[in-house]
Amino acid sequence: LNTILPLIMENTVTNAEKYFGQFCTLMASYTRKTAKLRDKSDLLVKQLIDYANSENPELRSAMKNFAEELAKVQDYRQAEVERLETKVVEPLKLYGIRLKQTRTDIKRFNNARNNEIKQLEKLEKLRQKAPSDRHAIAESNVHKASVDASRSTQQLEETINEFQKQKLKDIQRIFSDFITIEMVFHTKALEVYSSAFQNLDGYDLEKDLEDFRARIHVPFGNYNARPVNTTYPATTLPWSMGSQVRDRQLYTIVVVFMPFSSD
Amino acid sequence: LNTILPLIMENTVTNAEKYFGQFCTLMASYTRKTAKLRDKSDLLVKQLIDYANSENPELRSAMKNFAEELAKVQDYRQAEVERLETKVVEPLKLYGIRLKQTRTDIKRFNNARNNEIKQLEKLEKLRQKAPSDRHAIAESNVHKASVDASRSTQQLEETINEFQKQKLKDIQRIFSDFITIEMVFHTKALEVYSSAFQNLDGYDLEKDLEDFRARIHVPFGNYNARPVNTTYPATTLPWSMGSQVRDRQLYTIVVVFMPFSSD
Repeated sequence: LNTILPLIMENTVTNAEKYFGQFCTLMASYTRKTAKLRDKSDLLVKQLIDYANSENPELRSAMKNFAEELAKVQDYRQAEVERLETKVVEPLKLYGIRLKQTRTDIKRFNNARNNEIKQLEKLEKLRQKAPSDRHAIAESNVHKASVDASRSTQQLEETINEFQKQKLKDIQRIFSDFITIEMVFHTKALEVYSSAFQNLDGYDLEKDLEDFRARIHVPFGNYNARPVNTTYPATTLPWSMGSQVRDRQLYTIVVVFMPFSSD
Repeated sequence: LNTILPLIMENTVTNAEKYFGQFCTLMASYTRKTAKLRDKSDLLVKQLIDYANSENPELRSAMKNFAEELAKVQDYRQAEVERLETKVVEPLKLYGIRLKQTRTDIKRFNNARNNEIKQLEKLEKLRQKAPSDRHAIAESNVHKASVDASRSTQQLEETINEFQKQKLKDIQRIFSDFITIEMVFHTKALEVYSSAFQNLDGYDLEKDLEDFRARIHVPFGNYNARPVNTTYPATTLPWSMGSQVRDRQLYTIVVVFMPFSSD
């Protein structure tokens, strides 16, 4: 009888418990960190939109577009997080439950087997000591005990083989799923960022600068100069309403004081 | 004189301070979260290698390969983190310093300009009240004050134009760099994971299972059966030395007790 078998089984299950437990913890942690990266990026998206609204039309449009693309990447990251949870973390958790079941099965078959082996030993001793007329009975009992122990051993072997097969399959599937999930995310992110790059690259800085220059520049000392008319809605500039009114009055006074044209 | 100018400048700088400060904080945070994801992945790599060493040759090789590919992704993530720090977070930090400098410049030109405008107003009043013989002197003073104020206004305009131009350029550059860094990372990760996927897909589960079955299976009740010879080095299995010796002895005893072949 192969008595190393229970030890191999014990070791196989203990080893699986140890490593699958760690993989589960680490993968859950990896998923959480990914979710945190998504959260930070979401904040960045929000800030980019806020900022866009405070800027000139060209930059506003460029920033909004960038924010939208960044938001898309976060949608894909969210999908990544969900898929990691369902296809990596959850199966690893379930694995822990299956391991407990396997341990119970092993214990049961092993106990049965140990009892049968003890019975076998007892019968064997009995047969050797017994008078010749009881020999036949003992032989048949030994045979029965031997068959029982053989069947339990087989059950143990089947259990551990099934366990090992499932374990190898699960490892391959879980880590392949992990890689696939990551690949899908990277592919999508790459796609979105490529478009975002081209968009930001096409931002016409000069157009915004012209707008800005036109907004701040007043020909100095020109009698016909009018107060600057900002193109921004009052709501985006907290000071614009009150100060524009005040500026306009001040401006009028100042123009009166300007007797010389500088050109 | 354009008195809305200082307000536009004030608003432009304050707005930039607000948003660039937030972008700096968020990008630093994004970078830190990415670094944490790298750390978790590094732990996963370590655990995968540990696990690989406890497994059958085929799976061992597959897991080690996967661990190596995962480690490569982390190297690229590390490069991503470093590049985000130098090309995104640092420029945003430097931007804060430049903003302070701009604020100082604006204050200086604005003070000068305010003084010149006050001077101009005083002279204008003086000229209106003055007797006709002092008129010429006043006119020339007014002209001089007007030229000074004009020059300060121009300096203000130049400062804010230069600031705005640099700001727009920086925004475009920093966010383009961000996108580029992310794209490079996603491209590399995709490359590595593609190879990792093919490798894991090629893992020969059946070969490992055959090894495992051969290791645990002993033909029950076979007189010629020999103790199982595990193919593993003693060091990878903590219990293997002691228990193998013990098992071998037990096994011998058990074989003696097996008088019947089950076949």
